This record gives sequence, C-alpha cells and structure tokens, in this order.
Amino acid sequence: MAPKTPEQSKTTMTDLVLPSETNPLNNLFGGELLARMDRAASIAARRHSRRIVVTASVNHVAFNRAVPLGSVVTVEAKVSRAFKTSMEVFLDVWIEDRESGVRTKANEAIYTFVAVDETGRPVAVPEVTPESELEISRYDAALRRKQLSLVLAGKMKAHDATELKALFE
Amino acid sequence: MAPKTPEQSKTTMTDLVLPSETNPLNNLFGGELLARMDRAASIAARRHSRRIVVTASVNHVAFNRAVPLGSVVTVEAKVSRAFKTSMEVFLDVWIEDRESGVRTKANEAIYTFVAVDETGRPVAVPEVTPESELEISRYDAALRRKQLSLVLAGKMKAHDATELKALFE
Amino acid sequence: MAPKTPEQSKTTMTDLVLPSETNPLNNLFGGELLARMDRAASIAARRHSRRIVVTASVNHVAFNRAVPLGSVVTVEAKVSRAFKTSMEVFLDVWIEDRESGVRTKANEAIYTFVAVDETGRPVAVPEVTPESELEISRYDAALRRKQLSLVLAGKMKAHDATELKALFE
Amino acid sequence: MAPKTPEQSKTTMTDLVLPSETNPLNNLFGGELLARMDRAASIAARRHSRRIVVTASVNHVAFNRAVPLGSVVTVEAKVSRAFKTSMEVFLDVWIEDRESGVRTKANEAIYTFVAVDETGRPVAVPEVTPESELEISRYDAALRRKQLSLVLAGKMKAHDATELKALFE
Amino acid sequence: MAPKTPEQSKTTMTDLVLPSETNPLNNLFGGELLARMDRAASIAARRHSRRIVVTASVNHVAFNRAVPLGSVVTVEAKVSRAFKTSMEVFLDVWIEDRESGVRTKANEAIYTFVAVDETGRPVAVPEVTPESELEISRYDAALRRKQLSLVLAGKMKAHDATELKALFE
Amino acid sequence: MAPKTPEQSKTTMTDLVLPSETNPLNNLFGGELLARMDRAASIAARRHSRRIVVTASVNHVAFNRAVPLGSVVTVEAKVSRAFKTSMEVFLDVWIEDRESGVRTKANEAIYTFVAVDETGRPVAVPEVTPESELEISRYDAALRRKQLSLVLAGKMKAHDATELKALFE
Repeated sequence: MAPKTPEQSKTTMTDLVLPSETNPLNNLFGGELLARMDRAASIAARRHSRRIVVTASVNHVAFNRAVPLGSVVTVEAKVSRAFKTSMEVFLDVWIEDRESGVRTKANEAIYTFVAVDETGRPVAVPEVTPESELEISRYDAALRRKQLSLVLAGKMKAHDATELKALFE
Repeated sequence: MAPKTPEQSKTTMTDLVLPSETNPLNNLFGGELLARMDRAASIAARRHSRRIVVTASVNHVAFNRAVPLGSVVTVEAKVSRAFKTSMEVFLDVWIEDRESGVRTKANEAIYTFVAVDETGRPVAVPEVTPESELEISRYDAALRRKQLSLVLAGKMKAHDATELKALFE
Repeated sequence: MAPKTPEQSKTTMTDLVLPSETNPLNNLFGGELLARMDRAASIAARRHSRRIVVTASVNHVAFNRAVPLGSVVTVEAKVSRAFKTSMEVFLDVWIEDRESGVRTKANEAIYTFVAVDETGRPVAVPEVTPESELEISRYDAALRRKQLSLVLAGKMKAHDATELKALFE
Repeated sequence: MAPKTPEQSKTTMTDLVLPSETNPLNNLFGGELLARMDRAASIAARRHSRRIVVTASVNHVAFNRAVPLGSVVTVEAKVSRAFKTSMEVFLDVWIEDRESGVRTKANEAIYTFVAVDETGRPVAVPEVTPESELEISRYDAALRRKQLSLVLAGKMKAHDATELKALFE
Repeated sequence: MAPKTPEQSKTTMTDLVLPSETNPLNNLFGGELLARMDRAASIAARRHSRRIVVTASVNHVAFNRAVPLGSVVTVEAKVSRAFKTSMEVFLDVWIEDRESGVRTKANEAIYTFVAVDETGRPVAVPEVTPESELEISRYDAALRRKQLSLVLAGKMKAHDATELKALFE
Repeated sequence: MAPKTPEQSKTTMTDLVLPSETNPLNNLFGGELLARMDRAASIAARRHSRRIVVTASVNHVAFNRAVPLGSVVTVEAKVSRAFKTSMEVFLDVWIEDRESGVRTKANEAIYTFVAVDETGRPVAVPEVTPESELEISRYDAALRRKQLSLVLAGKMKAHDATELKALFE
C-alpha cells in the first residue's frame, strides 16, 4: 500500500449550530460537537484506508471557546499518523463571525480509528507521509501520544516509553 | 460594497448518510438531501452577504443518482450571482466510493436566498465576480433563470424576458 | 390500470413547527419544510401508484411567507399528472392563526416522483383524470413544466417544446 | 362562546414510519406513536379552543396492531367533549396497505388537554355539539371516563360516580 | 421460571430536557415524556422477562406538573405485576431543582408490555413477588386495572370483575 | 461549602440503542456514545455544584467493546474530584445481555466540567470526599491527569508535575 499524505484524507464539514443542539447558555452542547467530530474524523479515516472504520479512542479534547447558537462551525479532519491497523485523526474546529467573516479556532481534538473488514476484524492501512511543518509536528507527537495511551492502559512500562520519558528529563 | 468571487463564499459540507435518513430502498431520502443543501446554501449566502439570510426559492433540482446508506456525501455551495438583495446559490453534490475513492456527481441544485436585517427587511448584498469558466456560465444563466421565475410568477411579461426568449427563437 | 383522480391521492399532513426546526429569526427552516413536503408528496405518489416511489426532481418552490415557531402547518399533496412511470405532485402549504383560526397560504411546490419495483426499476403508473377547475389547470400546466425541464436538461430542443414555445410568441 | 362540532377541530396527520422510529421487530415504537398522537391531539384542542393547550392526561391506549417500517400512518384527532377548561380528544390511527390501498384501524387513544393563557392559567373553552352517531356515543362515554379518572385520583367518591356505577349494577 | 422482585427490573433513566423537546410554554412536550417513559418501561419489561417486548397499552397517565426546559428528569420503571405473557410496568417521574437539589414527583404512569419471541408470538414471563409496601399495593391494584381494561374492551362482563365491582359497593 | 461524596452526584442513564444511532456494522456510533456521556456527566457535575456547568474537556476515552443495535446501555457518572471551579467526572458504561442479564463493562471515560454563573463566569464548587476504594484511587489519579493536561497545554513545566514525573522514574 502506497503511503498517503494528510491532505489526501482532509475532510471539511461546515454546518450551522441548530437550536436543538444548544445548552442552557445557548451554546453548542459539548456532546454534539463530539458527535460531529466523530463523523468528520471517521470520514477522514475512511478516505485514508478505504475501509470500514470504527472509533477506537478519543484523546484529550479541550473546549476552549463556547460556540453560540447560529454559528457557522467548520470541522477539519486529517489523518495525522497511521500505526498498522489504526489511524490517529487530528481535528481543528473553527467558528466564523457573521459580520466580519473572521475565523477563530474553537478547539482541537484527536480521535483514533481502527480499519476493519466486514466481519469487524482489523486490517492494515497505508502509512502517512506528512508534508507541512504542522503535519510533521503532529506526526511526531502521535508517537508520544500512543506511548502515553499504552502506559495509561498498563500495556507498556513507563520506562520503555522512550519518547514520552524524554519530556520529563 | 466590494464585489466577491464565488470562491469566497464556497462552502463544503461533507457528512455520512445515517440510517435515520434513508427510504425503503436504503437510499438517502430526497427530503433529507434538500434540507442539507438548504443549510449549506444558506452558509454560502451568509458568507457572501455577512447578513442573516432566508430561503426565498428552490429552483429545479434533479435527483439523478440514488445515494446509498453509509455513503460519504459532499455538498458544495457557491453564490453564483447576486441581484440587489437576493443571491442565487449553485450546489453540486458528490458521493464517493469507499473502495476506489472515486467521486461521482450525484446532483445539482439552485437555491435563492434573500439577505435581511434583524427585523426581516431585505438589505443590499455585494455583487458577484465570476472567475472560472463554469462560474461565468452559471453567472450568465442566472439571469435567464431569474426572468423565467418572474414570468412564471406573472411578474414579468414573457415578451420582456429577452434573455429567455432568445432560447426559443 | 384505471385512471385516478387527484382527490384519490390527496394527502394531508398537519403538524406543529417544533423548536428544533427553526432558523435564527424563529421561523421554520426552508430545508425542514422541503423535507416535510417530500414526505407528503411521496405518500400521494404512493397512493396513486401503489408502488415504491423515489423523488426524481423538485420544481421551482417559492417561500413567500415565513412560518413562525409554534405554527400549525398543513401540507396538502395531490398527484396532478402522470407520465408513463413518473408523477407530478402539487403541494399547497397552509398555516393557521391560533386566535382567529384563519388559514393562509404559505407556499406552493411541485415535486416529481418515479414509481419503481423492488429492484429500483421504473414501472408504469395509472393516468390522472383531473376534476376541479384548479386540478385541470394544473394538469395542463404540467406538460409545459415537463417540456421546460427537458429543454433545460438538454433532452429536448426548445424548438420542439410546442407548449412552452407558445408562451413566448 | 358558541359551541363547536367535533368536525371543526378535526386534525389529520398522515406521515411515514421512518427507520429511526422502529423497534427491534422493525415496527413503530409505541413511544413514537404516543408522541405523534400527542401532537395531533394538541392541534385539535387548539383548533377547538384557539388557545395554548397543554397535555393533562392520556387515557387507556391499546396498541392492537403493529405498525411496520415504511407504513403510511394516519392519525385523526377530534375534540369529543369539553369540560369548562379541559377537552377530551379522541384519536383514531389508521395504516394503509401500499399494494391494495386498504386502510385498517391500528389503534384508538384518548388524550385530555387543558387550555391555558400565556401565564399557564386555565381558561374556559367552548362546548362540544356532537353530530354523528359515533361522535354522540364518544361524547356520552366521556362523562364516564371523567368520573373514572376522578375516582381513581381519589377526587370523587365511587358512590357519587353515578354514570360509572351504572356499569356495575 | 423463578419469580422476580420489582427491584430486579428497576430501570433508572436520568436525562436533561433538551430545547428540541419543548412546547410553546418552554416545558417538556407531553409526547416526548410519553416516548421516554415507553423506552424506560420497555427496558424494565425486558429485564424482567429477558425477551423482546412490545408495548401493549398505556393506562391513565396524568401530567400533574410541567417539566421546564433544562430540567433534570428521572424516569424510574419497575415491573409491578405479571400476567402469563404480559407485564404491567409502573413509572415514577421526578424532576430536581438545580439550586436546592430537591426532587419532586412530576407524574406517574402505567404501561403494559407483552413478551414475544423472534416471530412476534407471545411467550410466558416470570411472576412478580412484590416486597415493599408500595410494591404490594401496586401489585394488588394491578388486578383491578386489568379487569377494568377487559371490561372497557368488552372482553369481560362488569358483573364478573369482582375486584373492580367491590369499589362501587 | 460542605464537601460531597461521589455517591451524591451519581447519575444513572439507562437507555436503548436506537436504529438512528448506529454505524454500518450496526453498532452504536462512537459519537452518539460521546454525546450521551456528555449529558450524563453534565448532570453529575450539576448535582455536585448546583450550578450551570459547561464541558471543559474530554480525557482519553477508549472504545473497547462495540455496542450493538437494540442493546440496553447504562451510563453511570460520578464527580471524582473537584478543583476550585472545575470537576472531573468519571463515567462507566455497561451493556447488558438480554438473555442472560449479564452486565459487561463497555468503556470508561473522563470528562471535565466548569461551573459557571448566568453570565458564564466560573464559580467555586464544593470539594469531593471519596469513600470507596475505587473512588479514592480515581480521586488520586485525578491530580496526575490534571498535571498531565497542564503540561500538554504548555501551562505547567513537566519538571513541576511532581505527581506525574514519579510515574517515569
């Protein structure tokens, strides 16, 4: 399988914040944004792997900015790195001001998907070749994140997580 | 108000066909696609005008290809021409094959929006400067469509619809 | 197959405008109304043909009146004319004032459906016998609309669209 | 306030059974039908009273027939009797066979609504004048049902429920 | 089949009142609450019978208290009595005040479910052994309710409804 | 403000997996589960703080087990630790087998909420007093997670994250 660039899996989902998706402060519910990001990320993972994909995990997601009712929200998803049968997808969420047209970053998130066949068994996926500086830095960080998640799950000893350990020295 | 290009209002909405949106043949309901296109088109009209916008009309929409459950559907909307307070938005809908990644055109549609202020009164919008060949041909056709819709609504005499009349000579 | 009258396919869908279906001006989203009309029209087409039906196209729909949150909206659909395997469905949308009970016309729309068998292949449908004056005038206009849509799709020469051409002479 | 006939509040809601509304046997969820009937009944109560109305109670509803996915379901609601500020609404639910067009009764239900002003305080409603035989028999039974519900709620002594008591003698 | 206690089928469904579920007074729609109760009751019936279950009927439900937008609503369902293949499920609905944390009873309801096999045919279910005083009183009343519903459906003579008759003597 | 135990904020949300919430393998969409967990966690945070709460972040969530259509899913949420104005909520998700009644753990997740006043400004919340062994271990780990998230956000130097650093020595 030939490697692919993050640009090849890039998925853009622009949509409105509808009244049925808001909390008592009239902002988009965190849970609704999580669901939208899951759909966008799954499409990116599917474009990279051309397989059925299922959500394996969601990494730390910070909700830095409230997203008010009526906003135009753009979710952009790209596969940032692949590991055998899994893909890390990086998401950037933007909202834009109706009057000025200015786009501001609302939040970032990282989801992991596994490619499976029709019976649900994991299958191999192409590697990722990052191109831009941002893609390269996300690609590199993906390994640390993977080690962190193995350590937290008790599947790797902290001592062996070389990439991660370096952070604390 | 400086004119804008269609590219400046371009809106991309990529999303899955969910099980709750399908008809008895397991394809996307026509009505659901009409609703998605309305949201995408309204965002394009908003980006062009930076105003609240309301749907004024939907032109002929042909559903040429069924869109099966689980498809990745991309709705692309661009303002094709503006008339004082109204904007014609042209939509292209694509579906992509999961295995080959090939995108095929599923259908086209044209919606018209009016820009309004907070009280619902129409307000002026910037003009459109088409750039690509396709944008120019859609820009030109927009005038014929506008005349057609005025004639059909009985607000213009067929005789005065010069652009349209030319078609039948 | 015995012909049917429009009254035999008449479908009435009365429902509320719910909070989840409104735009920033607190009126029913155009897209939501398009989806409701599609469901009502598909039932009328099914009643006429007693077949599975799929949306083939949506003709010009004008949104003349805003439909506010909490309104009672009635969508009435009747098959106005049939062509071999396709049916034109005419829709009238009414809203009623809660205090006076007065019904006002909110808009009209025309959808076209094709009858299909379980494999999705088009099948023949009964003819339509219009009865009331309104039904007759809609039946007659349906032929002009069909020609218009064939001309716009490039499947008929403008010169051969005799019904339509007459409009511009 | 002039009395009204049940026909004046008659509300017809015809719609499809969508895939998102079905249970594991692929039939319409009881809860979804209850929600549709509530909307239809509230419109009938509104048409009778021309007021804001709120659901006060649901009487015994029997689900006699399963309603399969893709069915056309018609809910018909009429105010059967009014008591000062409350209205009993009788609902008949029909499904129709796509091939034969035959309509069969799927179930019946009775809802009670109270008319309120903008502050939520109960307000008087017009009386009901039943016309057809069925309407008259439902009108008469409404009193027994009201007594039954007062007895069950402990607000009337069984001994004073003269209409009801007669049933057991 | 060993009998089960109501506690063994107890089902707790705590959730928010979302903006899409409210009526013009900004309170939870009766129909939405009916649908939530149906889902909770079906889970209780499933836990009691370990079978597919379908809604057979809804008994008198009184909506005593409005449930405002943003409320936390708890629906608690327990099987109160079983009859061969059917189960009566008793539901209590609570809302809690955000500031004081005080829970108040919003309403009660009784649903009946039938256990079925994969073909939809009724199958036997375990008996119920009530434990608390409240469970015992609901268990006893269930027989009267069953007789009442048979009498109202014309399937039992009022004279033979011994439990019910006693009420009116 | 008196401290509270995790048990005092315990929130149980049991519900079905509906057809509209499933992916092409007929399992619950990751995004739908994320949204349900967000609602349950927000209720727990509200019960702890008696304030309006907004989602601040989602920690690593692993989807270990697919949740099939028709499953009964129980989401249990408890506030595990509080920091001035924020609360960490720990979620356990269980599915139960219809035939055996056996409950199995489907996944765990950690969400963080901030308590705010009506203007959206953060306000102080009570402390947490863990009771069970599991609650104590989650309480302790919460500090490490907080440090980790500050380090990853660049708001704390790895060197100062004493709790976390210990893991790698």
